[in-house]
Amino acid sequence: MKTAQKPRPKLKVRRINLDTGRENVAVISRHSRALRPEVFRGFSRVELGNGTKSMLATLLITDDSSLVGSEELGLAEPAFRRFACPTGSLISVTPARPPESLEAVRSKILGHSLGAKDITAIINDIAHFRYSDMEIAAFLVGSASFMTSNELLELTRAMADAGTKLRWERPMVVDKHCIGGIPGNRTSMVVVPIVAAHGLTIPKTSSRAITSPAGTADTMEVLARVDINIEEMREIVHACHGCLVWGGRMNLSPADDILISVERPLGIDTREQMVASIMSKKLAAGSTHLLIDIPFGPAAKVTTAIEAMRLRKLFEFVGDHFGIAVEVVATDGREPIGRGIGPVLEAQDVMAVLSNEVHAPRDLREKSLRLAAHLLEYDPEIRGGTGYARARELLDSGAALKQMQRIIEAQGPSNCQNDLGSLTVDICAVRDGIVENIDCLRLNRLARMAGAPIEKGAGVMVLKKIGDRVEQGEPLYRIYACEHPEFDLVAAAANAQSGYGIDGQAPLVAAPQ
Amino acid sequence: MKTAQKPRPKLKVRRINLDTGRENVAVISRHSRALRPEVFRGFSRVELGNGTKSMLATLLITDDSSLVGSEELGLAEPAFRRFACPTGSLISVTPARPPESLEAVRSKILGHSLGAKDITAIINDIAHFRYSDMEIAAFLVGSASFMTSNELLELTRAMADAGTKLRWERPMVVDKHCIGGIPGNRTSMVVVPIVAAHGLTIPKTSSRAITSPAGTADTMEVLARVDINIEEMREIVHACHGCLVWGGRMNLSPADDILISVERPLGIDTREQMVASIMSKKLAAGSTHLLIDIPFGPAAKVTTAIEAMRLRKLFEFVGDHFGIAVEVVATDGREPIGRGIGPVLEAQDVMAVLSNEVHAPRDLREKSLRLAAHLLEYDPEIRGGTGYARARELLDSGAALKQMQRIIEAQGPSNCQNDLGSLTVDICAVRDGIVENIDCLRLNRLARMAGAPIEKGAGVMVLKKIGDRVEQGEPLYRIYACEHPEFDLVAAAANAQSGYGIDGQAPLVAAPQ
Repeated sequence: MKTAQKPRPKLKVRRINLDTGRENVAVISRHSRALRPEVFRGFSRVELGNGTKSMLATLLITDDSSLVGSEELGLAEPAFRRFACPTGSLISVTPARPPESLEAVRSKILGHSLGAKDITAIINDIAHFRYSDMEIAAFLVGSASFMTSNELLELTRAMADAGTKLRWERPMVVDKHCIGGIPGNRTSMVVVPIVAAHGLTIPKTSSRAITSPAGTADTMEVLARVDINIEEMREIVHACHGCLVWGGRMNLSPADDILISVERPLGIDTREQMVASIMSKKLAAGSTHLLIDIPFGPAAKVTTAIEAMRLRKLFEFVGDHFGIAVEVVATDGREPIGRGIGPVLEAQDVMAVLSNEVHAPRDLREKSLRLAAHLLEYDPEIRGGTGYARARELLDSGAALKQMQRIIEAQGPSNCQNDLGSLTVDICAVRDGIVENIDCLRLNRLARMAGAPIEKGAGVMVLKKIGDRVEQGEPLYRIYACEHPEFDLVAAAANAQSGYGIDGQAPLVAAPQ
Repeated sequence: MKTAQKPRPKLKVRRINLDTGRENVAVISRHSRALRPEVFRGFSRVELGNGTKSMLATLLITDDSSLVGSEELGLAEPAFRRFACPTGSLISVTPARPPESLEAVRSKILGHSLGAKDITAIINDIAHFRYSDMEIAAFLVGSASFMTSNELLELTRAMADAGTKLRWERPMVVDKHCIGGIPGNRTSMVVVPIVAAHGLTIPKTSSRAITSPAGTADTMEVLARVDINIEEMREIVHACHGCLVWGGRMNLSPADDILISVERPLGIDTREQMVASIMSKKLAAGSTHLLIDIPFGPAAKVTTAIEAMRLRKLFEFVGDHFGIAVEVVATDGREPIGRGIGPVLEAQDVMAVLSNEVHAPRDLREKSLRLAAHLLEYDPEIRGGTGYARARELLDSGAALKQMQRIIEAQGPSNCQNDLGSLTVDICAVRDGIVENIDCLRLNRLARMAGAPIEKGAGVMVLKKIGDRVEQGEPLYRIYACEHPEFDLVAAAANAQSGYGIDGQAPLVAAPQ
């Protein structure tokens, strides 16, 4: 009988220049000196360790010794970054047991409801990249069929607890959030300067676009630096009462970003998951007073007023539980807000409104004033019903513009390329008539195809809105792109399906994302 | 206004030596001449085309021009093989819309039940590799919460229809199937020669192991070639009445293999999915009379007799609908069958039983005779109740052994390495007592860690069964491995947790797979 003596060989870390998105991926040689790769096959996931830390990864196999040698273990970029061990350092690799919390996911799939302990374990494992995409999908879909009130609260709490929690030494920290889906809806960039000019604290963190052509962070980045750390943010808010920064570096509810990266491509977006996602971020950000904007319309995330009401109740329920004063407004989500879709075009709209330009988009101005009015009335000094007048005063007087300039200066200059795309094409009406509907999903998709948000200057400028009379051949919108390949793609796509319904001839059908 | 003129550049196919399992993966340069890779980001899936065919793939991005240049598109092995275009040929790449059938998956997740058309579309898209792992997981989990009788029937039919359907010009084609989970349970390799020796047609196709240490195909491969095409199989069955071949090349219910590759790592295995999986394969294989073996026991797939009964009813329901005579037997699944776990060790057990060796494992012999008896009684010539005697007669007389030798000869010699692993360790009882339980999952996992089924000679030889009296230090089982790394891993794991419960001191807890 022989017994175990030789220690299992370790492998040398090699960096593989491969962007695998969210998922940790390791590459092993078919002739590896460690375990035979085929042995891993049934496991599919491996655990890497160097004695002090460990990480789960999905394993790929190669025969190409120039990619990964028999004494090496390749780590694709995200895994390399997260494991943070230099090239050449020795690590062990073993078949991974799935995270224990998957047992709770299976139980949820079978129809059981989960307790705080299970939900916390699941969220922690997800936040620490211990779930594969497949496993995250299983959790999301398993939770999509039903979620109890208690599960919703525990999920929100667990998500908020999994990352950084900001605390402000102020009795009132206001915030606003839109559930999204409406192109060009950059009200935050008008509301924050108005509210900050009044003196309320509004430390706004925003996301970058995931599947849309621009997030508030992408658009603000046209005007100022947004990649700001927590200490810098505190200084900016101290000086200006508000900020408009990217939340990505703050580690606020990190599991949320990971869940969203799977929800989006799958197109699963239940009420409960949306509420947990938003409220966990706000809880982590230390907001005390929160205004939620729910646009509803045929191609919006929420299609009916009844559905908007249901969602409102959920937000209120969770807000009350965690002591956040939540107010929800349902807004018109039938068409884009403003003219621009894409970072540079949207930034132009925002600055036009703040500068009180004659041709500034009226709908963006009005909606921003209305939202700001709600927030201003959180101030005990503001008499009920006078919030709107105060907001308009701050905007019309130039106080809001000045506040925005202070915020921009405090955040520092942007260093991204901010020219509008030089390749343009107008998409025109194919007949005379009245614009009856506009497919927001379609316009988002076209702006995205044109290169937004990566190309800041790419996007769509909306020239006609619902109710406008158009003549055959008259432009409905203009597409801006920076590069030929994208331009060709988007021009062909827009001509094939413009997203505009004129005179009822082309009833709105939401294009699959 | 500039308009679209320049056609979008095509990329040259480059083969990337990377085994990505089931999923199609393409790699694009961050400096690609086609679309900018970041534009794809939100899409995550791309469509490749060369004018005559198209394929969906998941896109990874690289900065390494030695891996993929700006004019190239890398295809990882499975994608390269499936797209079947030579290196250097030109293909286009565009952001992919998710398959339309995902809309039905979303509807299922929301609690609707699906009709034949939706289910057919989903299964076709899966069979043609148009779903990502994440999307397959969404379908499986969405279906796990409930499946109507009609959905089960439609799923079975759609899965059978998605691949090759074998037809035999015989009124009776018998088959047996075990739902699996029990180590060493290689009854098919005894039952097929008995039944074929009697003259019934039994064209047995089997799978290779996915997460277990051996499938029937892996074990049969120790004795004969199993990678047989349909024409060869017809000849073998014509000559020998039966065969024991690998079903992998037959394209029987191809979506099933794909679904299983996601079900297994997720550990989702609902009754309905199991029944659809097995029955679709049998329907495609042209079976007319089918015996299903459901082992039940604390660490088996089915843990109670009640659950076994529920499963039986489902098999009968689907069998009746499709005109397959189904008989279901629930068998003892508390411990391994025979002594060997792993291809070579199991093949030794099988040949010992067929050769009527004195030390042949009695439980494998008895179980095989019992199953063969059921199948033989499908023969109208066999009087009710005499199947067992006929099976024993065929085994004891050496007729079954002779039939097995004919089948082996017809299939041709195996060319795999068939030596038993040279590294061995005995795992011993830590106290005196009676073996009270054996954790089948644990033994499967250990045999797998030792290298089975890739290393044919790796595995576990069971030396003590439930009810045996053991003394402290007496071997419970022996582990065989071929390579040091695996050997060290499995020896340590087995010593830490043997899977044996002696005298009630260590109650059986199923180890997570």
